[in-house]
Amino acid sequence: MEIYYQPELGKRIGFLSEEESKHCIRVLRHKVGDKILIVDGKGLKVEAEITVPKPKKCEFKVLTEYQPEEKQFVINIAIAPTKNIDRIEWFIEKTVEIGIDKIDFYYSKNSERRKLNLERLAKKAIVAMKQSGQAKLPEIGIHNSLEDLIKTKKNIDQHFIAYVDFENPSHLFDSSESSKSSLVLIGPEGDFTKDELQLALDSGYRKVSLGNNRLRTETAAVAACHILNLVNR
Amino acid sequence: MEIYYQPELGKRIGFLSEEESKHCIRVLRHKVGDKILIVDGKGLKVEAEITVPKPKKCEFKVLTEYQPEEKQFVINIAIAPTKNIDRIEWFIEKTVEIGIDKIDFYYSKNSERRKLNLERLAKKAIVAMKQSGQAKLPEIGIHNSLEDLIKTKKNIDQHFIAYVDFENPSHLFDSSESSKSSLVLIGPEGDFTKDELQLALDSGYRKVSLGNNRLRTETAAVAACHILNLVNR
Repeated sequence: MEIYYQPELGKRIGFLSEEESKHCIRVLRHKVGDKILIVDGKGLKVEAEITVPKPKKCEFKVLTEYQPEEKQFVINIAIAPTKNIDRIEWFIEKTVEIGIDKIDFYYSKNSERRKLNLERLAKKAIVAMKQSGQAKLPEIGIHNSLEDLIKTKKNIDQHFIAYVDFENPSHLFDSSESSKSSLVLIGPEGDFTKDELQLALDSGYRKVSLGNNRLRTETAAVAACHILNLVNR
Repeated sequence: MEIYYQPELGKRIGFLSEEESKHCIRVLRHKVGDKILIVDGKGLKVEAEITVPKPKKCEFKVLTEYQPEEKQFVINIAIAPTKNIDRIEWFIEKTVEIGIDKIDFYYSKNSERRKLNLERLAKKAIVAMKQSGQAKLPEIGIHNSLEDLIKTKKNIDQHFIAYVDFENPSHLFDSSESSKSSLVLIGPEGDFTKDELQLALDSGYRKVSLGNNRLRTETAAVAACHILNLVNR
């Protein structure tokens, strides 16, 4: 059964947005009495029955409410935007599919890109959430510098920075504990500046490796997200 | 130091292809005596010194030969082509970055796409190999059906099929052993047919899960590849 998104989802009756109504009624040709799934992006998922199949405002009544699953962990990835926006959109799609709670963008000294279209990114997240059968969207934040990001992230259990140098740090998989909140900092395409690295280390971030190969920024971010999901599997 | 690709790399002297020479001499403006890294895609990596900086045929002499690292495991992913070719190209880029030895495409009964441009895919693999600092390209094969694929894959230690149903199979991470050769079958966008699933099970493939979320074909393939790398970390 396909999934629709309605952020103002109530627990009794409601309607789909114009875009979702069109897809439901015009494209998939649903009729009165057909059953659909609807999520609100905050964890609520319901099965509903179509009551008024209008192609601009499809009305429904809720039949069953699914309890959101209790998660014992929080996965937060912080990444500097890549020059090519496709790579960031791909990062959003893949981490939402795999499972992510918070995404933070920060502008590193070495970031070429200084602008992001949050609305467009949020749409990518919605598509991936529906595609992967989930009911909750990640929170997405933007920070003007690594310093700003670090200031807002004090209340997290485990802080990591993906950074490999002569110290040969241990793998994120072996360094992180399950059932905790975790933040992994991923460097920009030109890498962290010395000051940024030092600031993270001084703030208690632990260096971790993501494997033997040199990964692109967005690949590193997806790998880190996947590793934390595996630790909490 | 940037990496160049020369499949006919010798151990003493040689030259770069026209394309690589252009990049090296015209774009990066290397001169006589400059040092570059060259890989042959079969595991050999050398440091070389430019002797004749011609922009169509840059000649070099080998200074140092790096021993290929001994790997105790083989990662083989078999995937049905997706309708949108970008998703397959992305799968190639990401699995090569993360680490993969063999890629097999097979045409499932449910595959909409029945054609692949192997040359274009090989180019994607070369770019990702150089980008991630590796010296070896994966072997890439194409099979007309799942049956044909399965026939050629008898000599592998561990056979898996990514498939979740009422049986709730165990996670690939927990089912696979390190230091072995492993093949993971990833289903097409329309899923395996009943006959294909049965054929794989009858041929000794074990059902495994890749996590709780419903993943797209290419995401599942990258996740499986990453999991096997983690098992062998």
